[in-house]
Amino acid sequence: MDLNISRRAAALLILCSGFSLLCGCRGEVPPKPTGGVTIVPPIKPDNGPQAYPEAEKSNLPVFTMDYPRIQIPFEITLWMLLASFAKIGFHVYHKITIWVPESCLLISIGLIVGAIMHSVHEEPPAVLTSNVFFLYMLPPIVLDSGYFMPTRPFFENIGTVLWFAVVGTLWNSIGIGMSLFAICQIEAFGVQDINLQENLLFASIISAVDPVAVLNVFEDVNVNEQLYIVVFGECLFNDAVTVVLYNMFSFVAEMPVVEPVDVFLGVARFFVVGLGGMGFGILFGFVAAFTTRFTSKVREIEPLFIFMYSYLAYLVAELFAISSIMAIVTCALTMKYYVEENVSQRSCTTIRHVVKMLGSISETLIFFFLGVVTITTEHEWNWGYILFTLLFAFVWRGLGVLVLTQIINPFRTIPFNLKDQFGLAYGGLRGAISFALAFTLPDNIGRKQLFVTATIAIILFTVFLQGISIRPLIEFINVRRTNRNLGTINVEIHCRLMEHTIAGIEDLCGQWIFFSFYLLILSLNDTHSP
Amino acid sequence: MDLNISRRAAALLILCSGFSLLCGCRGEVPPKPTGGVTIVPPIKPDNGPQAYPEAEKSNLPVFTMDYPRIQIPFEITLWMLLASFAKIGFHVYHKITIWVPESCLLISIGLIVGAIMHSVHEEPPAVLTSNVFFLYMLPPIVLDSGYFMPTRPFFENIGTVLWFAVVGTLWNSIGIGMSLFAICQIEAFGVQDINLQENLLFASIISAVDPVAVLNVFEDVNVNEQLYIVVFGECLFNDAVTVVLYNMFSFVAEMPVVEPVDVFLGVARFFVVGLGGMGFGILFGFVAAFTTRFTSKVREIEPLFIFMYSYLAYLVAELFAISSIMAIVTCALTMKYYVEENVSQRSCTTIRHVVKMLGSISETLIFFFLGVVTITTEHEWNWGYILFTLLFAFVWRGLGVLVLTQIINPFRTIPFNLKDQFGLAYGGLRGAISFALAFTLPDNIGRKQLFVTATIAIILFTVFLQGISIRPLIEFINVRRTNRNLGTINVEIHCRLMEHTIAGIEDLCGQWIFFSFYLLILSLNDTHSP
Repeated sequence: MDLNISRRAAALLILCSGFSLLCGCRGEVPPKPTGGVTIVPPIKPDNGPQAYPEAEKSNLPVFTMDYPRIQIPFEITLWMLLASFAKIGFHVYHKITIWVPESCLLISIGLIVGAIMHSVHEEPPAVLTSNVFFLYMLPPIVLDSGYFMPTRPFFENIGTVLWFAVVGTLWNSIGIGMSLFAICQIEAFGVQDINLQENLLFASIISAVDPVAVLNVFEDVNVNEQLYIVVFGECLFNDAVTVVLYNMFSFVAEMPVVEPVDVFLGVARFFVVGLGGMGFGILFGFVAAFTTRFTSKVREIEPLFIFMYSYLAYLVAELFAISSIMAIVTCALTMKYYVEENVSQRSCTTIRHVVKMLGSISETLIFFFLGVVTITTEHEWNWGYILFTLLFAFVWRGLGVLVLTQIINPFRTIPFNLKDQFGLAYGGLRGAISFALAFTLPDNIGRKQLFVTATIAIILFTVFLQGISIRPLIEFINVRRTNRNLGTINVEIHCRLMEHTIAGIEDLCGQWIFFSFYLLILSLNDTHSP
Repeated sequence: MDLNISRRAAALLILCSGFSLLCGCRGEVPPKPTGGVTIVPPIKPDNGPQAYPEAEKSNLPVFTMDYPRIQIPFEITLWMLLASFAKIGFHVYHKITIWVPESCLLISIGLIVGAIMHSVHEEPPAVLTSNVFFLYMLPPIVLDSGYFMPTRPFFENIGTVLWFAVVGTLWNSIGIGMSLFAICQIEAFGVQDINLQENLLFASIISAVDPVAVLNVFEDVNVNEQLYIVVFGECLFNDAVTVVLYNMFSFVAEMPVVEPVDVFLGVARFFVVGLGGMGFGILFGFVAAFTTRFTSKVREIEPLFIFMYSYLAYLVAELFAISSIMAIVTCALTMKYYVEENVSQRSCTTIRHVVKMLGSISETLIFFFLGVVTITTEHEWNWGYILFTLLFAFVWRGLGVLVLTQIINPFRTIPFNLKDQFGLAYGGLRGAISFALAFTLPDNIGRKQLFVTATIAIILFTVFLQGISIRPLIEFINVRRTNRNLGTINVEIHCRLMEHTIAGIEDLCGQWIFFSFYLLILSLNDTHSP
């Protein structure tokens, strides 16, 4: 039976992929009559629901066809359908996804589709050569992460998370950048034209760690909560740091002279970007929470507010070039509690499901396109530079985790042991953010193609090699487990009891941090349910 | 308290509207630096997440702003937010929405926003000058109607529904078109340049009846099920007929001579459009139903399949210029039963809620834009032509209902009485479809502006006058009510019993229509839950 089902699924997959190829998969490009199945030339695209040709034929047409008109939504839908079929296909053979992360499988499918497209000389979809990634594909993924972040463990570990996200990313970027600059001085590799700024820019691109593959593995093998949340938080916030670094270095790479004042401005910008993003997030989060107090009569559009406010927080942050990722995560964290109290049960289910759904499909599409673009892009291969990039990325990540853990461990209630550190270091897979940043590199950087190739190489290397081997390794070295998922009623009662006790003690001590927050919640919700 | 809340809501509304105006509300137009709040000129829109200016400044900027980059998604989100606020605002004063339909209120808000935009010389959003309406705003509304159509009463009344939808719309189009052509011959009105084809084209535009306002009223006052479903079905399917007629007449209007063969081809096209749309709908519906058998492992993206297949059915129908409305409605009807059996309870909730949500927000936006565009469009006012249009639309609708009911009544189990006929005739409000079709009129029609003005006039007239007065009138003449909503357990049991009895009798008689369908369902679902 299983075989039968999978054969059918495969046939569907091929059909869909073939269809989308046939139709000329060009995503966002303006409609061109060449390449697509175009019978009617697009004379006037705006003159009605069906544009008829005005010349040649004189009789009323019984059958017409106008592809350019529906091209963009049609192809977007087909790509999504193809990616969704791939996801179904993997889960029909349940055994594959246990040992090979889904991201690897998606990239593989993407490679195959890319090879087919390359052989028929099709252009890849323009999804990553423009703002599409940052304005449409990234927000759902980050909203998903932010909305489903386990709030309590996150705030308990926020110091460590920020330490790794900010200092760790800086460490990696500067370490890798400097080492690569040293390598560039060796004549034999033929990359002497890459200067320090460009090396740092490239290093900042490949410093962002991607959560998807690692978190799935960590969840499945039930690693301890501290390790899980630190990797989770690091992945979320180092994206923000990476984008800042990228912007800074890409600005610096174009400057003739770097003055001392620029270093100071760079540091200032870090705070503007981070705290600004957080500020917008909190603002929009509270406005969203406040709005849901009035939606009890318009339940059917209730979930829309959550998506609109989160997206607005993201867009406004993008407008001012501050950390949009920080903004949307903070917005989701701020509003979540209030929103889920105010909206109906059905709306709550819908919000959670839609956030998960959009995040999931964006993620799927990104890995899929990563495979496609790997094949269809023009590459510049340089053994020395790329191999040393892989080496340095691995070494600096390991060193960074070792050093940073030594510094942070004395401040932690539960310090990280060596096994945890291995998990942290080995979990440093690179993914979508690096990929998107590499493609948005300014064109005036001479070795752009080499950087793109090296970025794709390090993504494929880490996702395939580390992604596949991390599960056996984690299980082999026996990283501390947790019974986090076995939330018995007993644990639940004790947790609640502790919460109230802490609130009481806080009140007695005069420390009103949590308690005043609680009072605020009460006062906000009080008038709502009379 | 109520006053306080509404004052706050109003302030939010004004704030949001002011903000969106400030930002230059241009929806779909390509980014222009003039008009928007642009500090950084868009030198290279594609060179990274934040485009910096390359000249002038030499230091690293701590604060930047790049509006054109986020313009399109930002303004779309703001418009949606504004419309949603309006919806919340109406429901704070619950008493308004009982007597004034929501569509009237939305148009009024739109008129105010349009007046503000006109006074500051802002262009309206380009939402209705392109394919945006037919490709993005109409599908959610029709999917909503199709998915939540009460299946049993619909199929019990399908003959009457199609009779009114097809013959009624033809009757209206030809009747109004011919009468207006007669009016055009009177010299005093100064519209002698409008020929017969153009009059018919215009008549086809204003023949589509819009369900939104009427159905809300009918639901609230509990009119009998037969009347309700006939208005519902007529509204759904006459859109299809209108679009066909529109395409035919807009083709004919550009032809120098109409040959007899064209009349034959026109009739043939009717069947191609109708049956073709139905065929695609059934095809995609079954593929969607089949796909949901394999989604038990990917619950988080399950609802996405429903939306993607429905949208594909719509787009493919648009591609071949056949009835996309028919396609998406049939698709929703076909898959609904299977999908809701196969997907999880959470997915089912999400699908229903998202379909409702998207339909609701599209509808809201359309009425809102109708108000905005009414103010910002250049009008050509002609008393004679417009008043006669209103008169003829009213008269032909009334006559049509009278005549068509006389013909169909002998075939009905429960014939329509005079009061029902009044409800049918008076419920003929014009709405979004007419509006969109008027704006997509070809530019080579000389009196396009007059047609647009007349269409807006008839929409405003029917929505405001008939929409507001229909509730008191229906209650006054005491149209037959139903206890449809009081689905007691007793009624439920008897219905089920009857279903099974009919299936048994069908089997005995050898008529396997319903029964074989039932067997098909069983065989399809059998292997799914072993």
